[in-house]
Amino acid sequence: MQRDLDQLMADRDLDAIVVSGKTAGNPPLIYLLNGAHLTQALVVKKRGATPHLIASPIEREVAAATGYPVILNTRYGYRDLLGKHGGDVLAASVAYQRAIFDDLGVTGRVGFYGYRDQGSAYAFLTALNAALPAIDIVGESDANLIEAARATKDAAEVARIRDVGRRTAEVVRQTVSFLQAHTVDADETLRHATENRALTIGDVHAHIHRLITLQGLEDAEGFIFAAGRDAGVPHNQGTLDMPLRLGETIIFDIYPRESGGGYFFDMTRTFCLGYAPEAVMDLYQDVMGCVAHLKAALQAGVETRTYQQMTCAFFEERGHPTIGSDPATLEGYIHSLGHGVGLDIHEAPSFFDHVGNTARLTPGHVFTLEPGLYYPDRGMGCRIEDTLWLDEDGNVSNLTGYPYDLVVPM
Amino acid sequence: MQRDLDQLMADRDLDAIVVSGKTAGNPPLIYLLNGAHLTQALVVKKRGATPHLIASPIEREVAAATGYPVILNTRYGYRDLLGKHGGDVLAASVAYQRAIFDDLGVTGRVGFYGYRDQGSAYAFLTALNAALPAIDIVGESDANLIEAARATKDAAEVARIRDVGRRTAEVVRQTVSFLQAHTVDADETLRHATENRALTIGDVHAHIHRLITLQGLEDAEGFIFAAGRDAGVPHNQGTLDMPLRLGETIIFDIYPRESGGGYFFDMTRTFCLGYAPEAVMDLYQDVMGCVAHLKAALQAGVETRTYQQMTCAFFEERGHPTIGSDPATLEGYIHSLGHGVGLDIHEAPSFFDHVGNTARLTPGHVFTLEPGLYYPDRGMGCRIEDTLWLDEDGNVSNLTGYPYDLVVPM
Repeated sequence: MQRDLDQLMADRDLDAIVVSGKTAGNPPLIYLLNGAHLTQALVVKKRGATPHLIASPIEREVAAATGYPVILNTRYGYRDLLGKHGGDVLAASVAYQRAIFDDLGVTGRVGFYGYRDQGSAYAFLTALNAALPAIDIVGESDANLIEAARATKDAAEVARIRDVGRRTAEVVRQTVSFLQAHTVDADETLRHATENRALTIGDVHAHIHRLITLQGLEDAEGFIFAAGRDAGVPHNQGTLDMPLRLGETIIFDIYPRESGGGYFFDMTRTFCLGYAPEAVMDLYQDVMGCVAHLKAALQAGVETRTYQQMTCAFFEERGHPTIGSDPATLEGYIHSLGHGVGLDIHEAPSFFDHVGNTARLTPGHVFTLEPGLYYPDRGMGCRIEDTLWLDEDGNVSNLTGYPYDLVVPM
Repeated sequence: MQRDLDQLMADRDLDAIVVSGKTAGNPPLIYLLNGAHLTQALVVKKRGATPHLIASPIEREVAAATGYPVILNTRYGYRDLLGKHGGDVLAASVAYQRAIFDDLGVTGRVGFYGYRDQGSAYAFLTALNAALPAIDIVGESDANLIEAARATKDAAEVARIRDVGRRTAEVVRQTVSFLQAHTVDADETLRHATENRALTIGDVHAHIHRLITLQGLEDAEGFIFAAGRDAGVPHNQGTLDMPLRLGETIIFDIYPRESGGGYFFDMTRTFCLGYAPEAVMDLYQDVMGCVAHLKAALQAGVETRTYQQMTCAFFEERGHPTIGSDPATLEGYIHSLGHGVGLDIHEAPSFFDHVGNTARLTPGHVFTLEPGLYYPDRGMGCRIEDTLWLDEDGNVSNLTGYPYDLVVPM
């Protein structure tokens, strides 16, 4: 949580942090801006102090909405610095950052965060480190301070995610109603409502996109509505010209966020229209069994990778290959169990089962569990995913208000 | 353009490039993926060779849509490397990148591109540079290779931007019709169509958002529809509870992109509902005069900063303060003249007037010109912005099919 920033800085022995870049597509910066819609910004926070926001004069009023003390970037005279350095952008950028640090009295270990071009970040921070002997530039390569703060959500964040979840479930509900409103031909394909042809995956995609928008959400990362063989390949988003037909597995994985770059939600349901073949029923039973098995075991303090191991063990006992025993398998259980959800669709905590993942379930975590089984060559796949919240008292709430039924009556 | 990549690599003496990261919010990577919707990817291109795409097995089918040879990332065994390095993510990442370079025979000068957390980029590339003596990591701090390629658009890109422009102009047209459909009270405020209250900026924002969506576009960076004093502060997006009233300047700056993270368009019009006060008319005449002055002077080969200088000179002759003579002024002409438009709303070429900007207008550039004048304390501002294309023959086309009229008859 934001209120943990000073403690997280102390843990890392950081005297100050810089979070900067363009705002769009930059969750670390968005997180610190408290909802202000700046185009770009530079936030400097010394340990124990309120952050300073350095912004362009043309955005001075938007900047004020952050609640931070605002410094106009003209104070540091970037244009003059460029002139002084003969147009050398790197040298001028270093001099500009030095002027900011001098002005704000920043010294010691300084962590840098926020998205920017990686080569440019490397060039800039290398040059800055060389130019400022009083500053020690710290680059965190994993589980960094901002990610750690973001991993646990405060009440306001949970309320927003819960509300996105409510609207997301409504989209799923309306999508199912849309499907049910169609008639079925003798060959078991669904018929388009107004045109003389089959209803296609593409038609459903267009409808889902519209439903998402009408809920005040955006599908910034797309969504998956994939059937048959495509459902057997986890990130296949669906083949647009494929007709919908009864009895095929449909994976509907939907992860929209608040319009304008806010909080995400993430859920998946597997459907069969009309009826489910026996092989699919078996798959579904195994996945639902795993869901129940996992939920019963969720507990604050447990390493997240434990749940990935439990999932592999559960599926292997039932005869499915998993990446637990064969990392390269393309059948069976072939991905990670879940992920944190927030301003990024995938954020901390990770559930990867590797020795570098030391994350433990912690009060404030909002995360998905999404066990699935995939058999593309048998034309089927099944995944069930909920977004869950571990609250301050250690209780798990399911933020996903939608049933698990496999068969959609037609 | 993409076809220039090898030449741009030769100009920079680069033997290979790496473009990587999460795809969302990462235009350098989106640019290289040819429309494939991967969650994350790593592209390695040796000079003169087709790029290789390294992707996750669960995205193998999406990856194939790029048309590049696809290598599944499991081949490089990240998990095993993590185990070998005792869970040290940085060491494992370096070993993983080394395995890729060894496999593909990459040596020499290698440029890294694509957005990621800056501290993490710094840590990773510093460690990589130290660990691989046969590789020289190159970080470009300005006008980098991918930006240079993206700055000039090929025919397919121009067609997409032109089409976004057509749909954007349609949104502006429908917004004006929406305003005109309202009645005006005796106090010159517009009346809400169905509720017993004034029509507000917030009502118009909600309507514009819906119109953008209905055009298959997304307002990923928002838009500006700001009136009166707010119009005098360039990036003020508008005060939501402010009633619309006759005679106030309204700045409508709209910059949506194709849904799902595609190409942007950017245009601005200034409106007065019903009538325009004389002071606003004068402002508008000066801005329109500047637009004409600039368009007559556009020519391939000219340094872009020349046009910023021309704009400052034009406005100063007419008695307006500008950042040309006073970089910190908050009145008059206070921003840069324009910017390239593509997968980013602001990309190369830049029109900043500083010695570091050596950009010249080049065939293939798609860019905005947006002169404006701002007087917040007098409650007014005016900006006119078109998106233009300099074609292969050196002719300038205006991609913005919308009139400039100031007064909207009510």
